Amino acid sequence: MGMFKRFQLWKINKHRTEAFSDGVFAIIVTLLVLEIKVPPLNDHTSSQELLDALVGLSPKIISWVASFFFISVMWVQHHNLFRMSEKIDYGMVWLNDIFLLFICFMPFPTALMGEYPHNRPAVLLFGLDVTIASLVQVWMYYYVAKNYLLSHYDQKNVMRNVKRSFMLAPMLLIVATAVSFVSLVLPYIIYLIVPFFFLLPFDEEKENL
Amino acid sequence: MGMFKRFQLWKINKHRTEAFSDGVFAIIVTLLVLEIKVPPLNDHTSSQELLDALVGLSPKIISWVASFFFISVMWVQHHNLFRMSEKIDYGMVWLNDIFLLFICFMPFPTALMGEYPHNRPAVLLFGLDVTIASLVQVWMYYYVAKNYLLSHYDQKNVMRNVKRSFMLAPMLLIVATAVSFVSLVLPYIIYLIVPFFFLLPFDEEKENL
Amino acid sequence: MGMFKRFQLWKINKHRTEAFSDGVFAIIVTLLVLEIKVPPLNDHTSSQELLDALVGLSPKIISWVASFFFISVMWVQHHNLFRMSEKIDYGMVWLNDIFLLFICFMPFPTALMGEYPHNRPAVLLFGLDVTIASLVQVWMYYYVAKNYLLSHYDQKNVMRNVKRSFMLAPMLLIVATAVSFVSLVLPYIIYLIVPFFFLLPFDEEKENL
Amino acid sequence: MGMFKRFQLWKINKHRTEAFSDGVFAIIVTLLVLEIKVPPLNDHTSSQELLDALVGLSPKIISWVASFFFISVMWVQHHNLFRMSEKIDYGMVWLNDIFLLFICFMPFPTALMGEYPHNRPAVLLFGLDVTIASLVQVWMYYYVAKNYLLSHYDQKNVMRNVKRSFMLAPMLLIVATAVSFVSLVLPYIIYLIVPFFFLLPFDEEKENL
Repeated sequence: MGMFKRFQLWKINKHRTEAFSDGVFAIIVTLLVLEIKVPPLNDHTSSQELLDALVGLSPKIISWVASFFFISVMWVQHHNLFRMSEKIDYGMVWLNDIFLLFICFMPFPTALMGEYPHNRPAVLLFGLDVTIASLVQVWMYYYVAKNYLLSHYDQKNVMRNVKRSFMLAPMLLIVATAVSFVSLVLPYIIYLIVPFFFLLPFDEEKENL
Repeated sequence: MGMFKRFQLWKINKHRTEAFSDGVFAIIVTLLVLEIKVPPLNDHTSSQELLDALVGLSPKIISWVASFFFISVMWVQHHNLFRMSEKIDYGMVWLNDIFLLFICFMPFPTALMGEYPHNRPAVLLFGLDVTIASLVQVWMYYYVAKNYLLSHYDQKNVMRNVKRSFMLAPMLLIVATAVSFVSLVLPYIIYLIVPFFFLLPFDEEKENL
Repeated sequence: MGMFKRFQLWKINKHRTEAFSDGVFAIIVTLLVLEIKVPPLNDHTSSQELLDALVGLSPKIISWVASFFFISVMWVQHHNLFRMSEKIDYGMVWLNDIFLLFICFMPFPTALMGEYPHNRPAVLLFGLDVTIASLVQVWMYYYVAKNYLLSHYDQKNVMRNVKRSFMLAPMLLIVATAVSFVSLVLPYIIYLIVPFFFLLPFDEEKENL
Repeated sequence: MGMFKRFQLWKINKHRTEAFSDGVFAIIVTLLVLEIKVPPLNDHTSSQELLDALVGLSPKIISWVASFFFISVMWVQHHNLFRMSEKIDYGMVWLNDIFLLFICFMPFPTALMGEYPHNRPAVLLFGLDVTIASLVQVWMYYYVAKNYLLSHYDQKNVMRNVKRSFMLAPMLLIVATAVSFVSLVLPYIIYLIVPFFFLLPFDEEKENL
């Protein structure tokens, strides 16, 4: 933590960190679709065979949509986090890199879940990756609030909100794990619903930028 | 809609939303070419065999060019939409995400149409994706006009233009579906022609940025 | 051309056009490496077998390096072109899209040339793509000068330079085609040398931004 | 070197060079994960078989994490380098392109090392690529200091620091080569540890941007 103290001496170009992160978000969100491969057909002109093949691709399509919205939500929160920060430091850059590591990993669990939708570890690896990414993001909010990097926000209020609101994400994913023992369809439903809880930024203050 | 009301309380960094969207557009437009694979040759040095193989790739190349121009047109319109907006809110960010979902999906119908050029559902899925993306974009124009986010534009005029000009896109694609029952070459022609109707932004006002 | 006249009434956000183009350049330059695949080995721990396999990959690596520098040169010229322009219009955006179409196509001829280094059409398709991209770029320089979009540059001087300097690119590539009938090694050498002629921007005026 | 002299007459848009580089960094860091492929399973629903397959993927996952952090470190240093520069010139743009060439190559040695973790040349090619990229970056720091492109930094101090601090990178990688003759596990450990030495920018001056 003494090392983290030193990090704060270094000013970082917030714009480039955002640009790098936006690039990563944009690429991950688009790479995901590459896992939905053109299905092989015996009769290239058969409508019926193609439609059946498309139905067979539905687990991959659902995995893709769930991933897309999770990453979109992460982007919105990331955007919000950086908007709340007046400046960032080296500690923040490295937390951001750890966060991006788990975002970059997303195509793998997404593909795995799409390929083996009835295999528990495949379904839960997706939830695990999202949970860790969320927790690192909570840590980033906390770090920003703790280290007085906020702009026009009440530190105590933000820290209280961070603790309260964000425990939700891991909790819902723990639920996904629990219900997976009942049926492997349930985690899918949870993965599709959870993003809606994060449509709005967690901080309720109405400020005008 | 009450939820959408709340969204408007949140200011969004327009620049980052543009950067994220530009990243997605740039990646999709480049990923498309990955579907054009190097053809296997029996005789690696045979010019004739290679040229024949390249002719065989022509449906994929046409699919790729059609996709490229559709996405370019979408980018130009997206650019125009954000230029017309003075500011954006959370509702706009989520409409934008839904729009990008259908843009991100493009490589799949493009590859499918390139692989099975004589299969109706493959040819129409491309049109369907483009139509939905267009409609979400109309909705975004409408949303911007409706919610007083415009800069230096007459709200009524924009809303009238939105309703008039943009009904065209889905209509032309409905035509593509209809003519596909006559011949599967016709939708291709329509897909290649439609982008030209959108070379210019729909709004005719001459303003100086 | 009357249509092009109308294009000029529309102001375009130069920054977003640059951002979109930079995204495309960055992605193409990185996608190219994906064609260099990990070679299959019989003995996974054999150094000798791996080194032999790496030597076998050399045509792909040379193709990749040639592509990388061509696209870097294109980027430098693109950067220079936009720096010389005070503003851009719709005609410019569409010329830029046509230019990017041929840049986006690059991974295909690069892979083709890497796979079939002793097949003339494969080697020449690379040259053809680069030539067309160069010619569209000349057209863009010309368009900017012709339509009074220049900033702090003498129009006549720029137009004269455009005509003189840029005829070079296609000419060198015509030479590549000619020498390919002597030996297919010669075009490779030309592809690797040509970029060096464009290390510096063509316009010799010393202005301070 | 006379040619390099001329390069300095040309002003370059620093922002676009950063944007292009950020794009390349973001794409490389995300492309790396594509090498971690979904493993084939005999029994699609077997948890045990999937977990075993995931353990078998561990060399690829370790390669990926090592690559991710090396590229992150390179990005942080690149960011620092451009922050220290008041302006950049053509010589800098081309050094940057050579630097990016070796960054763009990264997915290949990463995949090679992940596929053949017990093959010395595969393990060392990774180290070689990182070393060359580091050395080009040292050259860039040196170039910036030498050519009076610095902003608010003492030239002599920076040049002394460049020489001292950065010899470390190649040295540690020479060690990786040496220890690879003892055991091929040791280079992995070094690859994972080295990035931590570069968490902080090398220049100790505390300036406020």
